[in-house]
Amino acid sequence: MEIVCLDLEGVLVPEIWIAFAEKTGIPELKRTTRDEPDYMKLMQFRMDILKEHGLRLADIQDVIATIKPLDGASEFLGSLRELTQVVILSDTFQEFALPLMRQLGYPTIFCNSLKVSEEGMIEGVSMRCQDGKMRAVEAFSSLGFRTFASGDSYNDLSMIRRADGGCLFRAPRTILESEGDLEIAEEYPELLGKIRTFIENG
Amino acid sequence: MEIVCLDLEGVLVPEIWIAFAEKTGIPELKRTTRDEPDYMKLMQFRMDILKEHGLRLADIQDVIATIKPLDGASEFLGSLRELTQVVILSDTFQEFALPLMRQLGYPTIFCNSLKVSEEGMIEGVSMRCQDGKMRAVEAFSSLGFRTFASGDSYNDLSMIRRADGGCLFRAPRTILESEGDLEIAEEYPELLGKIRTFIENG
Repeated sequence: MEIVCLDLEGVLVPEIWIAFAEKTGIPELKRTTRDEPDYMKLMQFRMDILKEHGLRLADIQDVIATIKPLDGASEFLGSLRELTQVVILSDTFQEFALPLMRQLGYPTIFCNSLKVSEEGMIEGVSMRCQDGKMRAVEAFSSLGFRTFASGDSYNDLSMIRRADGGCLFRAPRTILESEGDLEIAEEYPELLGKIRTFIENG
Repeated sequence: MEIVCLDLEGVLVPEIWIAFAEKTGIPELKRTTRDEPDYMKLMQFRMDILKEHGLRLADIQDVIATIKPLDGASEFLGSLRELTQVVILSDTFQEFALPLMRQLGYPTIFCNSLKVSEEGMIEGVSMRCQDGKMRAVEAFSSLGFRTFASGDSYNDLSMIRRADGGCLFRAPRTILESEGDLEIAEEYPELLGKIRTFIENG
């Protein structure tokens, strides 16, 4: 049996924090790990901004519900789920992902979760495990799956390289240049084609 | 993050071979591991019967598509996927499960697969791994998930006992008697309630 592991942001949906920042007009929330490489510092910064603006989880989820998956993502995922098993591997939070998962037909997603106060304010994060994407691919492999992985970021490289098959999807030029040995796809039909070939070669 | 692992047959859908036997009027296909405990012998018997009747995989899938999920299963699964991640753990075959997964909104399913000839006849089986249900629960646990498992058969007991939480669902009297220490549920609202409690206790 095969299993396809997909990154979420940049592959199926837009970058959630950036889209959220644009929707709410809070530009500070466009800050990413490129600006603040220390992830826990970045999350603390984000939570402080959310608190300043009095934004509870429910308010954030209402905004995220207005973010649409990338054009063609739903149809791509639908075609893929006819062919094989799919799990989304992401560093986002379950509570943020939910409004998007509803739009995508609830694919299984392995990510992290938020700590939320009784008043509904985000108090902290609960990181599921270290290097979650690669470890998930390893776990599926140990369960007898042939694994295929695809993503667009630096944090997808270890899972793509660990999987039996894989490719970059709409990766930025810097990654395409430094990881020139990896296969690439820019559009969903191309990605679906590579996955079909991977399945047939099994 | 939590993950709920559910058995398929008897929990979300009817016993596939029995339903298939009834739909096609081929009573020999009602034979189960209760009659033939050697699983590979049983599968060979089944494949021989299918060949005798000239039934290709496509014909079998057409019949399976007329099998409906158990009453309330779709709604239960819908409610569950709003709350947590769900993976179906089954010993069935991906190709048999697909017509049912379509009706259930394509939940992720870990099962086995068939070897199919170019003419579309079932030639053999490809078993993904030994003790797949328990090993999947262990794998999820190693990835930082709190695990909940539920099923109705002897082959579900190891995953139910290995998981952080779990219960039997509509199990037969013999299992209820021999596994009297396990929690039980008979209806979906009861099962959903146990899962909600498990999540809240996290």
